[in-house]
Amino acid sequence: MSDERIEPLARLKEQLQKLPGIGQRSAERLAFHILREPRDSAAALARAILDVKDKITRCRTCFHLTESDPCTICRDPKRDKTTIWVVEQPKDLMALEATGLIQGVYHVLMGHISPLEGVGPEDLTIAALVERVRGGQVKEVVLALNPTLDGDGTALHVQSLLSDLDVEVSRPARGLAVGSQLEYASAAMLESAIRGRTPM
Amino acid sequence: MSDERIEPLARLKEQLQKLPGIGQRSAERLAFHILREPRDSAAALARAILDVKDKITRCRTCFHLTESDPCTICRDPKRDKTTIWVVEQPKDLMALEATGLIQGVYHVLMGHISPLEGVGPEDLTIAALVERVRGGQVKEVVLALNPTLDGDGTALHVQSLLSDLDVEVSRPARGLAVGSQLEYASAAMLESAIRGRTPM
Repeated sequence: MSDERIEPLARLKEQLQKLPGIGQRSAERLAFHILREPRDSAAALARAILDVKDKITRCRTCFHLTESDPCTICRDPKRDKTTIWVVEQPKDLMALEATGLIQGVYHVLMGHISPLEGVGPEDLTIAALVERVRGGQVKEVVLALNPTLDGDGTALHVQSLLSDLDVEVSRPARGLAVGSQLEYASAAMLESAIRGRTPM
Repeated sequence: MSDERIEPLARLKEQLQKLPGIGQRSAERLAFHILREPRDSAAALARAILDVKDKITRCRTCFHLTESDPCTICRDPKRDKTTIWVVEQPKDLMALEATGLIQGVYHVLMGHISPLEGVGPEDLTIAALVERVRGGQVKEVVLALNPTLDGDGTALHVQSLLSDLDVEVSRPARGLAVGSQLEYASAAMLESAIRGRTPM
């Protein structure tokens, strides 16, 4: 096939295959789809790809993704600046925000401490969080990190740094996942449910 | 989430979701991946998408995809111009070409006749094929269309158009798929195998 290799098509396949979850067959199907669709659609896709790189930056206050710094949440006068919800990733922030239940603001750590992956506290935005709290306005910090080993370890580290400051540190409740079945719950889920039982 | 909707990210997700086989979750995963990767990688992907639209055209002789017209196959003096392999799509051409067994040249019909999909003979490159054969050089036309109802129907139509011309019309052998098992073969596969049995 080398002789009639169509370079732009081969290159698009290569580029698509670098994306997560896109194998050789999907890359080929996608490449042919893009080849067939109108140029406008392809141009819109290409533009969208460049725009997420060029137009999105980080909020200097909370480190969420944003088009304008500070982000719309930090800029919103209606948000309660005394409560900071600390999350690992922008995706986590979006999940919390989608509930419509959060009145406070956020702080995105941009990961979790993971010695195995070579991520230390200095690679995260922990120092900036401590600075925000030192600012004095903050009354509560909710460590909404993932309920995993790394998430818990990171939460402990952040908690110890905040312990000297006049701020309440909490974390979201743990227990049985709503909609799950007791007989299939993991030991860790059951333990958190049992220890954290609340009066009805 | 409307207030903190990050427009470029949302737009990239929308664009990615238009691609075949990319659902909401994959689009989100891909969008975040592109957001995280270096700008160079994103730019290379965007460029590759535009290049398949801008740099690839159709060969005026065989209608294969090509960067230069005529394509490398039609231009190759070593190819046997007296045998034309007729296929439905460029992908079919590539599959045949990958075998390394084809000495002849190709003709891409750009589809098959399908009354249900509103595709008639005039939507395909059948007239151009007939012209090529009328040119006089061609000795054999192999109708390598898909062994499906539509493919067979299209082959019959092309065959009837070529019947008046001094050219041999053939089609690839049909029978048991190599590597398949007789007990699972479809009735159609068995019938073609039985009718087309050959001396050993």
